[in-house]
Amino acid sequence: HMILKNGTIVTMNPSFDVFEGDIRIEGDSIQDLGRLNAASDEDVVNLEGKVVLPGLIQAHVHLSQTIFRNMAEDRPLLPWLQEKIWPLEASLTEEATRISAELAITELLKGGTTSVLTMETVRNTSVVLDAVKRGGIRAVVGKALMDRENRGHPNGLKESIDSAIADIEELLATWNGSENGRIAICLAPRFALSVSPEFFKRIVEFSQQHDLIIHTHASESKDETEVVRQETGMGNIEYFHKLGLLSEKLCVAHCIWVSDREIELLAESGSHVLHCPTANMKLGSGIAPIVEMLAKDISVAIGADGAPCNNNLDIFAEMKLAGLLQKVRKGADALPARDILKMATISGAQALGQEDRIGSIEIGKKADLTILDLDKPHSMPGDDDIYSRIVYSARPDNVDSVWVDGKQVVNGGRLLTLDEQDIIDRAKHAIK
Amino acid sequence: HMILKNGTIVTMNPSFDVFEGDIRIEGDSIQDLGRLNAASDEDVVNLEGKVVLPGLIQAHVHLSQTIFRNMAEDRPLLPWLQEKIWPLEASLTEEATRISAELAITELLKGGTTSVLTMETVRNTSVVLDAVKRGGIRAVVGKALMDRENRGHPNGLKESIDSAIADIEELLATWNGSENGRIAICLAPRFALSVSPEFFKRIVEFSQQHDLIIHTHASESKDETEVVRQETGMGNIEYFHKLGLLSEKLCVAHCIWVSDREIELLAESGSHVLHCPTANMKLGSGIAPIVEMLAKDISVAIGADGAPCNNNLDIFAEMKLAGLLQKVRKGADALPARDILKMATISGAQALGQEDRIGSIEIGKKADLTILDLDKPHSMPGDDDIYSRIVYSARPDNVDSVWVDGKQVVNGGRLLTLDEQDIIDRAKHAIK
Repeated sequence: HMILKNGTIVTMNPSFDVFEGDIRIEGDSIQDLGRLNAASDEDVVNLEGKVVLPGLIQAHVHLSQTIFRNMAEDRPLLPWLQEKIWPLEASLTEEATRISAELAITELLKGGTTSVLTMETVRNTSVVLDAVKRGGIRAVVGKALMDRENRGHPNGLKESIDSAIADIEELLATWNGSENGRIAICLAPRFALSVSPEFFKRIVEFSQQHDLIIHTHASESKDETEVVRQETGMGNIEYFHKLGLLSEKLCVAHCIWVSDREIELLAESGSHVLHCPTANMKLGSGIAPIVEMLAKDISVAIGADGAPCNNNLDIFAEMKLAGLLQKVRKGADALPARDILKMATISGAQALGQEDRIGSIEIGKKADLTILDLDKPHSMPGDDDIYSRIVYSARPDNVDSVWVDGKQVVNGGRLLTLDEQDIIDRAKHAIK
Repeated sequence: HMILKNGTIVTMNPSFDVFEGDIRIEGDSIQDLGRLNAASDEDVVNLEGKVVLPGLIQAHVHLSQTIFRNMAEDRPLLPWLQEKIWPLEASLTEEATRISAELAITELLKGGTTSVLTMETVRNTSVVLDAVKRGGIRAVVGKALMDRENRGHPNGLKESIDSAIADIEELLATWNGSENGRIAICLAPRFALSVSPEFFKRIVEFSQQHDLIIHTHASESKDETEVVRQETGMGNIEYFHKLGLLSEKLCVAHCIWVSDREIELLAESGSHVLHCPTANMKLGSGIAPIVEMLAKDISVAIGADGAPCNNNLDIFAEMKLAGLLQKVRKGADALPARDILKMATISGAQALGQEDRIGSIEIGKKADLTILDLDKPHSMPGDDDIYSRIVYSARPDNVDSVWVDGKQVVNGGRLLTLDEQDIIDRAKHAIK
């Protein structure tokens, strides 16, 4: 065990306590908090002047798309998928998938993200999981599920329900709960246009049988939402309601084009909304009504989505933009900075179904910590409002060190788990 | 003289040439471009794998506000000014002004910004200019001009026209064209609500007599624009037109709440619009119609505005957000990345009246260069579209080295001109 001493601890606990003090880590967990005296055999890390956050959580990313960064510009959602992302995903080799996941994990951990909820592609999910294992990030990983014909899915992505379920069963057996519970499996039906009603129903059953999160997309672009309406006669969330998908186990990315009734349905069911502000702007999709959702007590988490629609995986940029977007919609006092940090911590933990283990700095929770040095020219001064300082002035280069499951994975801005230069070299080679 | 060898040179010249090659710097200028052979006495810097941009230009910043960063949250423009910024500016000591400007210059240069057009506060402009001189950034600096009574201006900001003009004459004599032309003075009437029509007319005359840029704000928030309409019976740009302000010498920040007629007036007069996307969102002001302005060939430059309404001074964040905002307004193919980089280079140079000297990499122009290492996990891969890669994936931590006026001011991400740690220490002390 060890003590992290003299940090400014932003707990994000139910009272939102912020205090100057110490954290004792024992094994994978936070064993004590406060002003602690180090035992003679205890390692002490001095965090004077540093700010300690719960490890930040991105609840919607696509690790295996990372190698498509900067390759799918200036397109709205459906052409972006049909002309770029799906053909690129179909062409992904195992090695390219591995590089992609490693690039993503490097960027995420160095940028202070300790946990992710992901949707991968149809194949090679175990390659991604192996990178997660080696990289040391906490992840709930979903193989993309796509069974519908004639949707512009290239060969190699579309598969039968039975084949997909068999693959998931194997992933569950091998990976779910592995690495001391750091790795979990979820069900990831891509979106209404890729998944048949039969498969959605099977996914709901399977989720209930195995206690798994369902991670999907809905109501991202106006065009996509219109196609769903033409095919089903209803809004996308109403359609999910009819299929029995809505529940505390459902995590839905985007939810931009939702009616008041659909916001009610999301709220009543305890479904989680995964907000992706940069991606929503980059694809020209729209601005999600986050203020209205929070007013209904919907759990809203946040994520960067994939590199080819962002083009970073930077939780600080997503937090800042989440605030800016609601301010420009609803006025300068919309969406306080603390509520935004909540999206990236405790609400993210709720989306992952792990609020008992991560998302805040509390005794007994996992030692997942993101430690910032804010005394840099671009983020100082600012002692008045620690939440605004973090949300509006911090960047990935403020991340000093990162702990996941009691293990330090970043130190002084340097990744300890993977060889960054080797990943960069392999990524350059793979593109050629 | 020296040669920078084997970079990817993004020239932003009239043909938008991009090539692999070399730059010879002689004194303050670019002496040659292409595949060059180093003379035996020439220093050679190897830029293999690096991307060389014209030094980036922010055409609207407030250096002396930097120490108010993270101190003026969640307010719309007028309360933000009246409750926070003006009282804070009125309280600025010389030492606080110095720290403020040094913090800003450190952030700007390390972040790849080599030139700024600034509006400072009413007093202590020479303190800011001294920091500009020592810091090594290129700057066109304006003392804020505010003569109107009863606008919520605290004592210490408001001053008489004659007193302001006398101050400007002294600044001109001491500073304009100093440091090999790196430093210039502009006229900076704050905005219509702070400046009487008499003073505006005097400023136009003075600008013509001394060939000076006029740098102001207009049509930023709906409330401010409405007050101008109540007082003058017209839109803010129409009012400027009536006062004779509109011309190629006028640089107007924001221009969000402008009519089609006002866009025509800006276009016909050759006035420059200074777009500040983050600040416009942060204060809940709105989204400027940049696509419409560019369609009319208005020169649109870009800037971060001040630290207390952003809360960074990061040209990469501003470029990215400029693109994202127009995409969410007008579709995913609105505003190509190259046009955005143009705002931060050649259009910025035009706003500063220095397009003959900066804004592109061309023989005979000043050696102002921003050199990026894009081979980092968050910005790779991406050889398809260099402009998108820069605008959507680059960050300040991609800035490897920076040259201003033939002098290297940043090397390996480290500032060479000022003592960063000393500035940080003094900023912490000043706040206590």
